[in-house]
Parts: sequence; structure tokens; C-alpha cells
Amino acid sequence: MPSRYDVVVVGAGIMGVSSAYYLQKNNPGKKILMVDRYGGAGQGNTGRSNAMFRNTFSSSDNQILADSSIDFYFHVQKELKVDLGLQEIGYLWLMDETQHSKSEPSLRRMASNGIEIAFFGRERLRHLLPGMMTDFGSDGDAEVMGLPRVEGGIFGPKCGRLDPDRLVRFYVDEFVKAGGNVAFGSDVTKLVMAPSKPLGIEGEPLVWQEARVAGVSIGGSSGADVVADTVVLAGGAWLNELLEPIGLDGHVKAKKRQLFSVYAEGSKLEKLLRTAGFNPLGLLPLVILPKAGVHFKPVSEERCFWVACEDELNRPFVDLPEHNLDGYVAERQYYERGIYPVLTSYFPDFNGSRLKAMWAGLYAYNTADNLPLAFKAGNLIVVGGDSGSGIMKGDALGRVVDSLYRHEDEAQLYGGRDYRVSKLSVEKRDVEREEWVI
Amino acid sequence: MPSRYDVVVVGAGIMGVSSAYYLQKNNPGKKILMVDRYGGAGQGNTGRSNAMFRNTFSSSDNQILADSSIDFYFHVQKELKVDLGLQEIGYLWLMDETQHSKSEPSLRRMASNGIEIAFFGRERLRHLLPGMMTDFGSDGDAEVMGLPRVEGGIFGPKCGRLDPDRLVRFYVDEFVKAGGNVAFGSDVTKLVMAPSKPLGIEGEPLVWQEARVAGVSIGGSSGADVVADTVVLAGGAWLNELLEPIGLDGHVKAKKRQLFSVYAEGSKLEKLLRTAGFNPLGLLPLVILPKAGVHFKPVSEERCFWVACEDELNRPFVDLPEHNLDGYVAERQYYERGIYPVLTSYFPDFNGSRLKAMWAGLYAYNTADNLPLAFKAGNLIVVGGDSGSGIMKGDALGRVVDSLYRHEDEAQLYGGRDYRVSKLSVEKRDVEREEWVI
Repeated sequence: MPSRYDVVVVGAGIMGVSSAYYLQKNNPGKKILMVDRYGGAGQGNTGRSNAMFRNTFSSSDNQILADSSIDFYFHVQKELKVDLGLQEIGYLWLMDETQHSKSEPSLRRMASNGIEIAFFGRERLRHLLPGMMTDFGSDGDAEVMGLPRVEGGIFGPKCGRLDPDRLVRFYVDEFVKAGGNVAFGSDVTKLVMAPSKPLGIEGEPLVWQEARVAGVSIGGSSGADVVADTVVLAGGAWLNELLEPIGLDGHVKAKKRQLFSVYAEGSKLEKLLRTAGFNPLGLLPLVILPKAGVHFKPVSEERCFWVACEDELNRPFVDLPEHNLDGYVAERQYYERGIYPVLTSYFPDFNGSRLKAMWAGLYAYNTADNLPLAFKAGNLIVVGGDSGSGIMKGDALGRVVDSLYRHEDEAQLYGGRDYRVSKLSVEKRDVEREEWVI
Repeated sequence: MPSRYDVVVVGAGIMGVSSAYYLQKNNPGKKILMVDRYGGAGQGNTGRSNAMFRNTFSSSDNQILADSSIDFYFHVQKELKVDLGLQEIGYLWLMDETQHSKSEPSLRRMASNGIEIAFFGRERLRHLLPGMMTDFGSDGDAEVMGLPRVEGGIFGPKCGRLDPDRLVRFYVDEFVKAGGNVAFGSDVTKLVMAPSKPLGIEGEPLVWQEARVAGVSIGGSSGADVVADTVVLAGGAWLNELLEPIGLDGHVKAKKRQLFSVYAEGSKLEKLLRTAGFNPLGLLPLVILPKAGVHFKPVSEERCFWVACEDELNRPFVDLPEHNLDGYVAERQYYERGIYPVLTSYFPDFNGSRLKAMWAGLYAYNTADNLPLAFKAGNLIVVGGDSGSGIMKGDALGRVVDSLYRHEDEAQLYGGRDYRVSKLSVEKRDVEREEWVI
């Protein structure tokens, strides 16, 4: 006999746990189940992410979704006294004159919407970061690589890092306290379709029958193991594995992203890690170099830097994303040939540094505009497509899912800000494109 | 040694042949090659389609793309004396009162944009189609199936059928006459990426190198067999097979669509086929029933009807579309259980009719809004996502591709109408959603 629920939430990454929490909190009489194939929450790509947050977006949609989520996370850490590992280290975008002029419209949009940003001139940067190369003179390698000079930096103070494991555990704990049920180690393999009015005909639902999602099957069984009135899909990079078989598109494509952890050994790199002048923590901010989106952040408790870069073009979309992420590894040569030459050109202190660890995960891209999606299709609610910035918008998106469930036009985000949920749908999509990317 | 071209067009379906023709016609000095894996043009899904045309869309974008293409096809057939098999039989949408009120906004938009439509009342329809059931009284089956009554019909006169094989041959012939080159039986298996400035480093292009599509490889070879300054991708349902490996999204998903050819045997069905009163040809129009999008059209020269239906939900997207469409077959039970009960309820003359043939092909859906896409990404031009109505918009879309190539903001469609090409892009997409679907 299948178990019956009012709502089943598929996926316990940041989108799933936040959605489950707000659904249970705001619909206390409902019987809600959250399922995930892994042994705990956040064990998929949420746990493998760089877990940075920023409110510095050019899109007003990204601004409000991230800014309100960040405020909620600080509320949890400061007022509710749950340590989420939040460190407001800031983001520092280094750039040359051309890049700076190109970013003017985005910066104006941030300023006019109250997003705090600061400009650091070249001299101030040279003073704060004496080990940084700001130009390369007649360096042939730098010219061949097309490295822009550093003529300034844009600094976002309401940006930083958090601990994704603690964050998802906070939501799961609150969900369970509110009466929610969890089933970990349960791999949802299929959405089970059924006619709204079953007739017992072979091959149901037939084309002339109204069809709906009756529930989900787990671990490869043919029928519905869990029957639910509403199914919330928060499958991240794997969203389309469940949607495509029933002919729906989650508008998400998966792409590999890699992180490289480098020892902050030796006095120079240790000093770089503890660079003062940017934040009250006395730590280096996340630094974004002017080439290929190479960026690195201090992970002070591990005495290392995490280094990554952007590779949109020529990095394939993953057709059949692996479920066993343990076997999904980073590529040493990608670091050594792609990232390292750029990193050491701007920060020669990294010359000879050693890799401590490297790993890979999947971004869940909404390839239309890179902004998150949340929409209803019959009795399905789909959330995803956060394109690498889901953790920093997770709280707002959980509230949006709950509003969709309760047929509310506006979600009330943390801090009392309203957000029209149809903006994130497919059919009535109405979002400002993001121009301010790493 | 790879061969070198200014432009290579991948795919010789309707999008490819129309694009190739306008590119060669408007850029006479350029060396252009069109390649296709099949032995001739239109041997993929173009040749398997229902090949209907209509100008009756609610979206002004669809209206202008289709209406101008239809005008061009009639120009070819009437003025250039190339028989494209055009038959202006019309489309007849049967509906009940509820469906009719729902369609009012779409009908108003057609009328205000000069799209010709006519309303047929129930009595007139009963007179023209005496064998049609317009209501079902206490018929239990009709009630169980939820069949709406026929209370009227919307008729589009500038709608009909054409011969897709003749249409693509027209474009290929003109392309070759204008100096274009064709390579059939050439399966493009890969887009070959290369640095804009090659350095001879292993693993090029690296992340800090500017990369571009250098050409295409054919038949599984590792390098570029054809080098081109511009690559035009018109791969239809297979678009993403070439784009995903380089990390781009063609925004197209493939879904199986089926056609069933039924003998018009016996005096009643033969009489139905040659129903007078709708068009000067004295033929039945394409008839769309009020349930599940079941529709059928007369194919007079074959003395049969082609029958199909819509099955959006619960029809999976195809992950790895088969290239050998010969093995891609229709499902008899889909006809017998899904379509036949609806068809025979409204037109009992089909009772006992026999299937002559059945086949299947792939729709190339743009799942965001079902309208076509045409965009540039570096030196790539992508066209597709026509979602089942590519043939009727093919001429306009070929002109749009040529305008993209020539950096023109506006494409001049047949009849002198201008169309802003960025409307069909992803980044600056600006199309009216379509509400008037079969």
C-alpha cells in the first residue's frame, strides 16, 4: 500500500529543504514528506558548492531574492543563535578600465536599488594587496594570455561565505519540529501519471483523459509508492530526469563546476589569507580576477584558499548527470593549465603552491536567463534553475514555493518585502536579466 | 586537408534549405556548403510532417512569419510555376460554447491584424457535414470521454497543405543555381572548437583563451573536415546534439509525433473527403475536433485521410533522438485507444475504417514559448525550435538567418514586410506567446 501525503517534496538540497520548511510552517495541518536519494540533506550539489553569498546583482529580481535571504540567514545566526558559518568577507571584482566602463550600468542599478558597493582605486589596492601584480609591462606570457591590467576594484560588503551543511540542517530541523516527515536514502525514479477519473482501461491515461501526477515511485518500482495531492520537485541538476518522461521541461541543464583547495602555506600566502582592510574579520575577500572569472576565497579555518573559474563555452552540458557524485571528480589539468597560469600571474605568491583537494559538482543552469524558476504545472510545483546561486537565494525561493502552493500572488520575503511569484514562472516570466556575473 | 568555406549550413530540412538559399542569394560572392546526414534534403522530420500551413495564429510574430511564407509559396507556385502541391483547403476548428468564449481574445487579435477568419454556426455545419455528431444526448461513452458538443466552428481560409518534398527541392535547386554546394550523406558529428589565436598548447582552447567554432567534423573524425568562418546550425530535433558538447543550449527538445493514414473507402468516407462548401477545391478542410486536438485532413490524391492528435502531457521528450527514422515507428494502440474513439464519436463514418499507413517523426519544441528561435553565438548562427510549424514559417526564417549573417537588424520578409530579427533571439527575445494551438 502506498503511503499518502498532502505534499511530497522531492530533493533535500537547499531548494527542497527551504520549500519543505515554509510549506509545513504555513500549512500546519498538512502531512508533508521530503524525500532524497542521499543519506541526508544537502549531500548532492548543495554540499559541493562554493557556498558564497552576495547581494551584488544587477537584476532587481536577483537583488531582492538574495538580499532578503542573506538577511534571513543573519537573523538565524544572530537572533536565533544557530551558527550557519556566515562570514561577511565581501567580494572584490578586479578590473581594467574597459571592464569598469562596461559595468557602469549594472553599478548604477545596484546603487539606485540600495545595494551597497564601494570602489577601490589602483593605489589603494596596491597598498592593501602588495603582492598583487597590477600590470605586466613587457611580460610576454601575460600578453599572450591577454591579461587585463588591474586598474581598480568593485567591492561588495554584504557578500561572503556560509556553511551549506549547517544551513540545510537548520531547515530540516525546523521542518521536522513543525511536523514534517523525511525519508532519506529514497531515490525517486519516476513521477506516476494517472487519469483524474480512472476508468480501469489499459494504457491509462489515454490522450482524451485528463491526467495528473498521482505520486512518485521510489527505487525503480513501477507504481506510486507515495501518493500525494501535490508534488514539489526540487531536483536541482536532475530536475529533467523526472520531468522529461512526462513531457514537461524543467528548463534546467547541468554543467560541471570544479573547486580546487590550495594550501595557504608559507608566510606570503598566510599573510594574503589574513589581508586586513576589507572587512572586520581581517580576511581577504573573495577576489575575482579580470580574466576567465578566476576567483579565490580564504577558508581560514582550513588554512587554505578555494580556487575556481568560469568556463561557459566549451564546457559540455551533462546529458545524464551521475547520481554518485563520489565518482564525479575534478580535472587536475584544468587547474594546472587553465587556472594556475592566471592565478600566479596576478598573485605570484601562489607560485609553487600545492593542491590540498579538488572536487566537482553540477550547476543547474536555467539557460534562458540564468535566473531561478518556480512554476506550477497542474498539481506539480517545480523550483530550480538557480544557475549556481541557489544557496544565496534559497530562503526566498522556499517562500515562493509555499506561495505557489497556497495560490498566493505575492510571496512575503524576509524583512516584509513582497515578491510577485509569477515573475519566476515560464508562461508569465518577467525577470530582469543578470549582467553582473563572475 | 579540410575544405574551406565562408559558411557551412548544417541540416537540409526546411530551415536549412531556406537559410542556405537566402544566404547564397544575398551574399553571392560567398562560398557556402550545406551538409546533411541523409541522402537528400527534407529526409528527416520535414519529410515526415503533416506539412500543413496556416496563418491563423494569435501571436503577431507567428502571423507575420507564417503569412509572409505562405505568400511566398503561392508566389512560387503561381508566378514561378513550380508546383509545391499547395492546396488551400482551410482549417476548421470545431468547438463548444466554452471553447469559443475562451478563443475570443485570440480571434480578436487575428481580426485586428487582418488575418481572415470566418465563423460557421451549428446549423450551417450540420448542413455541410451531415455525417457529423454535434451532440451526444445520453451517450454514456461520450460523457465518460468528456466530449464537448459541436456548437460552431472557426474557419481559416488561408490555410491548407503542401508537399514538403517539392518545397525543399525548390530551395535546394535555387541554392545550387545561385552557386551553393551541397554534401548529402555527410553526418556532422561535432562542432570543432579552436582558440581564436592558436598557441599550440595541449588542451587548447584553455579557459583563458578566446574560443570559436572553427568548423565541423563529419562521420566521427576528430578534427575539422570542413573549416568555415560561420556555421549555421539548422539541426531541427537534433540541434542540441551538436550544441550541448560545447556548452550551448539550442533551447529545443524533441518529442515524438505520429500520423495515421486511413483509407477513405466506401461511399460515406469518400463523400466526406469531397465535402463542398468550404473551399474552391471542393475538399474537406483540415478538421480539428473539440477533444485532445484530434484532427484529420483529406489527402485527395491518395484517397485517404491523415489523422493525428496532440499529446503534450505524458508524452516523453526524447533524450537521444534516433537518427535512423526508418526504425522510428508509430504506435497502433495510440491510434486505436486514443484517437479512434474520439474520431468515430464525432464522425461515425470512420467506424470500421482501416489504417493504410502510419509513421512517426520528431517535433523540435522550443519549450519556453513554442515560437521559433534564431540567434547568434559568436560565429555560430542557430535556427530552430519551430515546435511543429516550421514548414509554414520556413521562408521567413531563412531570411532571418541571412539577416543575422549580414548583421542586419531587420529581415525583409516576402511582400516587403520587415521583421526585427532580435525578437527571435534568446537574450533579447520579444515574441507574443501563441494561444491558438491545435
